[in-house]
Amino acid sequence: MKYSHHFFFFSFRTFSYLANMLSRRFYSTTARKLITPLTSVKHPSLQRGPYKKLDTKDLEYFSQILSPQQIVTETEPYNIDFFNLYRGSSKLCIFPTTVQQVSSILKYCNDQRLAVVPQGGNTGVSGGAIPVFDEIIINTSKMNKIRSFDPVSGIVIADAGVILEELDQAIEPHGFTVPLDLGAKGSCQLGGNVSTNAGGLRLMRFGNLHGNVLGLEVVLPDGTIMDGLSSLRKDNTGYDLKQLFIGAEGTLGMVTGVCLLTPKRAKSINVAMLAMDSFDQVQSAFVAAKRDLCEILSAFEFWDHDSVELVQNTILQDQIFPMKGKISPFYALIETQGSREDHDMEKLDQYLGQLMEKGVIQNGVLAQDTTQIKSLWQWREKIPEAITVSGTAMTYDVSMNIRLFPQMMQDVKTHFESKGLLGSRYTNILGFGHVGDGNLHIMANMHGFDQKEQEEFDDYIFNWTIKHKGSLSAEHGVGIHKVDYMIKSKNPIQLQLMHKIKSTLDKKGIMNPYKVLP
Amino acid sequence: MKYSHHFFFFSFRTFSYLANMLSRRFYSTTARKLITPLTSVKHPSLQRGPYKKLDTKDLEYFSQILSPQQIVTETEPYNIDFFNLYRGSSKLCIFPTTVQQVSSILKYCNDQRLAVVPQGGNTGVSGGAIPVFDEIIINTSKMNKIRSFDPVSGIVIADAGVILEELDQAIEPHGFTVPLDLGAKGSCQLGGNVSTNAGGLRLMRFGNLHGNVLGLEVVLPDGTIMDGLSSLRKDNTGYDLKQLFIGAEGTLGMVTGVCLLTPKRAKSINVAMLAMDSFDQVQSAFVAAKRDLCEILSAFEFWDHDSVELVQNTILQDQIFPMKGKISPFYALIETQGSREDHDMEKLDQYLGQLMEKGVIQNGVLAQDTTQIKSLWQWREKIPEAITVSGTAMTYDVSMNIRLFPQMMQDVKTHFESKGLLGSRYTNILGFGHVGDGNLHIMANMHGFDQKEQEEFDDYIFNWTIKHKGSLSAEHGVGIHKVDYMIKSKNPIQLQLMHKIKSTLDKKGIMNPYKVLP
Repeated sequence: MKYSHHFFFFSFRTFSYLANMLSRRFYSTTARKLITPLTSVKHPSLQRGPYKKLDTKDLEYFSQILSPQQIVTETEPYNIDFFNLYRGSSKLCIFPTTVQQVSSILKYCNDQRLAVVPQGGNTGVSGGAIPVFDEIIINTSKMNKIRSFDPVSGIVIADAGVILEELDQAIEPHGFTVPLDLGAKGSCQLGGNVSTNAGGLRLMRFGNLHGNVLGLEVVLPDGTIMDGLSSLRKDNTGYDLKQLFIGAEGTLGMVTGVCLLTPKRAKSINVAMLAMDSFDQVQSAFVAAKRDLCEILSAFEFWDHDSVELVQNTILQDQIFPMKGKISPFYALIETQGSREDHDMEKLDQYLGQLMEKGVIQNGVLAQDTTQIKSLWQWREKIPEAITVSGTAMTYDVSMNIRLFPQMMQDVKTHFESKGLLGSRYTNILGFGHVGDGNLHIMANMHGFDQKEQEEFDDYIFNWTIKHKGSLSAEHGVGIHKVDYMIKSKNPIQLQLMHKIKSTLDKKGIMNPYKVLP
Repeated sequence: MKYSHHFFFFSFRTFSYLANMLSRRFYSTTARKLITPLTSVKHPSLQRGPYKKLDTKDLEYFSQILSPQQIVTETEPYNIDFFNLYRGSSKLCIFPTTVQQVSSILKYCNDQRLAVVPQGGNTGVSGGAIPVFDEIIINTSKMNKIRSFDPVSGIVIADAGVILEELDQAIEPHGFTVPLDLGAKGSCQLGGNVSTNAGGLRLMRFGNLHGNVLGLEVVLPDGTIMDGLSSLRKDNTGYDLKQLFIGAEGTLGMVTGVCLLTPKRAKSINVAMLAMDSFDQVQSAFVAAKRDLCEILSAFEFWDHDSVELVQNTILQDQIFPMKGKISPFYALIETQGSREDHDMEKLDQYLGQLMEKGVIQNGVLAQDTTQIKSLWQWREKIPEAITVSGTAMTYDVSMNIRLFPQMMQDVKTHFESKGLLGSRYTNILGFGHVGDGNLHIMANMHGFDQKEQEEFDDYIFNWTIKHKGSLSAEHGVGIHKVDYMIKSKNPIQLQLMHKIKSTLDKKGIMNPYKVLP
């Protein structure tokens, strides 16, 4: 390899690699330490809707159709999200096991006008799956069967509560993999993925869920079961109704079953980490990767040096950052997935060699085996967790023309520095994300919690994004976090049509109220 | 190459290759020869809706907002489709050039309750773009500007009337290509592609339009312009409204602008044609292609021997079928697209060698250059044209589990043979299509035209498909052709929701009436 003398091929000490940043253990131990104020207190402008309050008669009804294990009134773990950003006051969390039960529950709630919030793995970061007031939580965790898998077509049908990573493991022996991959894969559930239109790390390769979901089973707010579990790759008969529910965050109905097209699992996976002096170089490396790695390129992630420092100091304290030495302002992780190791390595060699020759990258590391691949990935995947354990987290997932990334990061820091708030009130302002999708994650910490300061930061981020024609949410969804900014960011025609669709499907407004629609 | 002695590497005489089966010249000369009866006569159950009839006042209004060149009252070419299957009696075809004009037209038509039918390149085969009675045709041909292209992201924004192939040629110098490719590419328009959710030959590689369309500009039936031309790869803020219009066949609004994500153009394209003894072998070759060609596989098409014969006898009379000699019941065309010729050839060599060794294929031809690639493709792409010039065409595009393909073909032939109709009333029953997408095209000829015989054939095909849980349309759409079968093929909940959405968006029902919704 021409460039090999420039590269560290690092050898590892023992790795205590944790497969998922959002492991449930982490949720139950860490997140409870600091309890965020109630969402309804943080957002005093929100008024509880004209919904019935849960009473003993309602509990009687649910106990008729569900077993005692399916009815939980110790609701604390379900009233708060992983990032400790949102908190509700639900008195009841129910765990249906079948679509018929979901149907009965929703029919009853609709008749009685009891508001509900669908919840999956509770890994969302916009508050979409957390009650605002006392909405009943309908949790899909006990609907966790893989219904069918066809090893010729790669088409799988599964319950909404199947955990993404477990689905991936189940189809692995057949040589297939799920088309989406995200840090939360060990906890997030398929129904939640669909409802938030989760993007993740490999969207640039396999496309989004609007393309990969072939069919959905959805229970409409009045309890009607819409069985659209088609397992046909192509079906052009009438409106593609399932699309309405992909990314609707549970406001139009409750997804109970998903038919997903899964791609062949790659026989060869390679990962390289690169260090670069400027964001222009990150962009150059990305354009070259699209050209030279083309069909095998599966991820192109970047992060800044502050992200490395925080991860090193909080989560990966016992590990050596593979590119220690000269500090670089930006790092990138490139992943390839292909069917022949020799071909993929040849392409990657040539690509990396050229980047070194042209001075686009200063330094690089190539993983030599699966363990090293995982360990390179964690420097990217652990960033959100590092923020969460460092104080009150603020998290954003804007999308825009990638050329704007460095300007936005700089503007945010300059703005709060000029107001004397950087370092005192706001710390750890990190930038990272998916270059391939124009998706920038900004995360930061706030000292303690102050609603006004949260709003000030939100304001600056969202107004900057709107001004530069970006989207307020590339993948996390609107939830409760961005709902107030929808009027500024969407045009009135779009909002009007959204409201029309909402009132057509959910006349009484019981499905996940206060979210998405301003 | 291990297998090379088994292969004919054919050398060609001069090729008079016609780029597109649906060239406009062909349309204007051939299709007019046999004029199909009026759709309203063929479907006597259809009643004209309560729409206003066009009068001189309406023409006066249109002549105020449009130039004389944009108003055509010699409507014959626009009242009939390419396949000569549908015919309307519109008295007016208008050609807006801007979205504002479309808005004024629809607002007026909605106020006056004049029914309209949006029309693009008029290459559809389900009658979706042809009036049934006297609907005003709004043709997008004069809205044909490419508005912008970003050579970093590959994101293009274009008017609805841009011809697919012209868009492809415009982005080719930047190293990009359109993600969909179909026989009609030389005439079909982007807005029509989106409205019918066109699939085509490379869907298995690049996915469908629900994934590749990033944004749409749509004029709603009341004239409201919904500007959803986002050019963000990821945007998760609220309902994904554009999805409603993808595949709605112009019944919910009129698409005027499209933002499309285009993939990098392959540096290396290879095409092989294979001959096989059974459909089981076609399937085996397909499964092996997904495994061994994986990320470079871009098309896997098949057709039967009768298709070869008809194309040879009607369209490609002066050409030699590359696999002359022993007759094989099935042929397949495999295309790869990759970034390195040497790697792609090595993969393909190994794949084809193994198929020969295992006896999966009997015979094969590998194209040596672009001309040969085009000439191999035309044996597949010319099949619909061959049917069209051989009599009254009947065309179907069902989708189902691919294992069922040969059974369906056999059942159709046996059924009509047992009724004594094969060869006398129905001829040239051909089967071909996209193995990769489970999409079977069945085409046949009828002697003359007889509505009862058409219905008998439709009935058999559609009922068989419904019985075997397939879709009546993989890619052509419902149009007028399949509307009567929707009640049998969709569940009532889906139909109800479709009707609700239709009446929410198009209260007066002026948009493309009689189509899609039963």
